[in-house]
Amino acid sequence: MYTFNQLQCKVTDFINTLDYTVSPEGLYEPMTYILGLGGKRIRPVLVLMGANLFTDKLDNIYLPAIGLEVFHNFTLLHDDVMDKADMRRSKPTVHKKWNDNVAILSGDAMSIKAYQYIVTCEDRYLRDVLFTFNSTALEVCEGQQLDMEFETRNDVSVDEYLNMIKLKTAVLLACSLKMGAILANASKEDAQLLYQFGIDLGMAFQLQDDLLDVFGDQKVFGKKIGGDIIANKKTFLLIKAQELAKGENADILSQQLALVDFNAEEKIKTVKNIYEELNLRELSEAFINEYITKCLLSLDKINVDKEIKKELYTVVDKLLNREK
Amino acid sequence: MYTFNQLQCKVTDFINTLDYTVSPEGLYEPMTYILGLGGKRIRPVLVLMGANLFTDKLDNIYLPAIGLEVFHNFTLLHDDVMDKADMRRSKPTVHKKWNDNVAILSGDAMSIKAYQYIVTCEDRYLRDVLFTFNSTALEVCEGQQLDMEFETRNDVSVDEYLNMIKLKTAVLLACSLKMGAILANASKEDAQLLYQFGIDLGMAFQLQDDLLDVFGDQKVFGKKIGGDIIANKKTFLLIKAQELAKGENADILSQQLALVDFNAEEKIKTVKNIYEELNLRELSEAFINEYITKCLLSLDKINVDKEIKKELYTVVDKLLNREK
Repeated sequence: MYTFNQLQCKVTDFINTLDYTVSPEGLYEPMTYILGLGGKRIRPVLVLMGANLFTDKLDNIYLPAIGLEVFHNFTLLHDDVMDKADMRRSKPTVHKKWNDNVAILSGDAMSIKAYQYIVTCEDRYLRDVLFTFNSTALEVCEGQQLDMEFETRNDVSVDEYLNMIKLKTAVLLACSLKMGAILANASKEDAQLLYQFGIDLGMAFQLQDDLLDVFGDQKVFGKKIGGDIIANKKTFLLIKAQELAKGENADILSQQLALVDFNAEEKIKTVKNIYEELNLRELSEAFINEYITKCLLSLDKINVDKEIKKELYTVVDKLLNREK
Repeated sequence: MYTFNQLQCKVTDFINTLDYTVSPEGLYEPMTYILGLGGKRIRPVLVLMGANLFTDKLDNIYLPAIGLEVFHNFTLLHDDVMDKADMRRSKPTVHKKWNDNVAILSGDAMSIKAYQYIVTCEDRYLRDVLFTFNSTALEVCEGQQLDMEFETRNDVSVDEYLNMIKLKTAVLLACSLKMGAILANASKEDAQLLYQFGIDLGMAFQLQDDLLDVFGDQKVFGKKIGGDIIANKKTFLLIKAQELAKGENADILSQQLALVDFNAEEKIKTVKNIYEELNLRELSEAFINEYITKCLLSLDKINVDKEIKKELYTVVDKLLNREK
């Protein structure tokens, strides 16, 4: 059995060997650039961990696994254009370093590259893998579309929000694990349990990300705290606050959301106060715990020795206790 | 044997039955819109004609064929964003009717939809089809990248131009025909001959398109004449003119290329005059005829009765004698 860290190193090494020094440079350089910005490589690692539950032979699984990382980076590239984001992982985004057209076209080429890697899998798994990947990829687009639509809406419900993060984030993690299972010839039941495990893990992960954006420790979290509050981002916390705030708190909240010129620190403090008064930290943690419970239940049910699943239990801890 | 027109009708009917009334509408409506703008549907028709050389059973080939039309429309959608084009087929482009983000994301979703259609082919052809399609799709991106790079370069050679149009236009036509052959279980040799036929047909088609843009009859051509001259587009004609013009003509040409404010009709007339003095119409036609000869030679060699190939010979006439 490989550990998360071992697989992470192997995946990173593998990505560094990918050769994109092909012509035209203007198309391929941005691929090398964004793939070189790093990141946790969670998706390919999950493919490999999913497979590793059922087999020790992972050699043929690296390339399809990396296909998912390339696909994920393609979505980041286009999302950054759409969100007009200047920085990613402390470096200029592709459309900032080059321009929008380069980001659009290199992204398109990356999505095809992703397919080229994915189809290197064995013939007997090809259809299954493509079926799972295609539906997931389309769902990821749907998630991004909903996320953009929510920016201009003031009536987003919690259910709608949960559906959006499921599509935008959870399904690709779930697809990664399921693809690993398929590529290791696991049973349909186990593949589906891994998929459900991935969905609930992804939901917990995204909800915790929202929580840490407000209540996290900047040094540990790695991103600036309060970004979502400054941007009026419709997270679980904001949607719940709009639903629950009464009287003065409701007024303050809508005032804060309407501010055009404001002191960032003050806005963060004011909104955070309301969240605290409404006990949203605890409510959010309870929600996260429900997803964790569900996700562990799926993992329990997978028809494999507990010892072999150990590393996936550790992943749940690793991803969800990032503050400790 | 089906005729080009019969298959064109069938493809168009099929596209009209595709149901994209799925949520979120903001993602799927632009797909219906751009696919509904019409067009000659050449790519799916070529898939079906390629297959029809070897089989009469086309039922399972419609969806993969339409995958290529969806892919082609995805590239149009993104190209229009990159080229800041306002109109396509006399209707507003997607990014004009909606906005850039919609065009980027709907385009991404369309490229995945294209794969969903393509993978509906039989298992035994899946790997071959995907291998051909993936390389082609990547080449189409490379062609668009080169086309954009040429806009800011003044030293583009004829060979570079021919390579660009091969990648941007010819390879997808060639891929369509080859995919048809694969899906009809043709021999590797015949599939490759159809591919080469498609390349040369595509080259002749694009060079003729450049020629008609200057010397065509607007009513027959369907587009406004002189667009390439107004935009200083580096076509075969302009590149050759820059290479061959001497003395006064060379001066006039560089003056015209440098103009910022100009009368469109005058610029078209002046540049067209130079093309005529340099006999570029004849030179271009000679080039086109070379490609036609090559393309017919490949078609001759395909191991199928001449009678069965008749409709493809007609296509060469149809596509390349659009003025008659």
